[in-house]
Amino acid sequence: GLTKGADADGNAYWDIGNHRRVGTSEFKGKTLVNIREYYTTADGELRPGKKGISLSLEQYKNLLQIIPKLNAELGID
Amino acid sequence: GLTKGADADGNAYWDIGNHRRVGTSEFKGKTLVNIREYYTTADGELRPGKKGISLSLEQYKNLLQIIPKLNAELGID
Repeated sequence: GLTKGADADGNAYWDIGNHRRVGTSEFKGKTLVNIREYYTTADGELRPGKKGISLSLEQYKNLLQIIPKLNAELGID
Repeated sequence: GLTKGADADGNAYWDIGNHRRVGTSEFKGKTLVNIREYYTTADGELRPGKKGISLSLEQYKNLLQIIPKLNAELGID
């Protein structure tokens, strides 16, 4: 299932598979939406990896607007 | 506006702001949804940068399922 969790800073995230997460965070007073891959260290700690992107709220809202067109392109729905 | 374009391989993409694009591509017969930052070379060519992630169709569908919860977390809608 799509488990909701919270990281060490209390930020919400959801797993989307293959050690990838979608979540929110705050940086310099701005809200970010992060889509990022995580990896497990030798100590068993989960850490953010290089693959990923942090979207501003504006960019995320633009993504939301695009989704119906993207779904049509992908043949989803 | 949220301009739709097509890259050199004919793949659809949309700009979401700040030189970032959401688009589709095919790799080894699998469809990917890419969310990635681009940069302009000295020659004026636009190239994919390091910041970004390529989601499998399954991961993208998981993202779609999460969006209502993410929006609630963000206070959107």
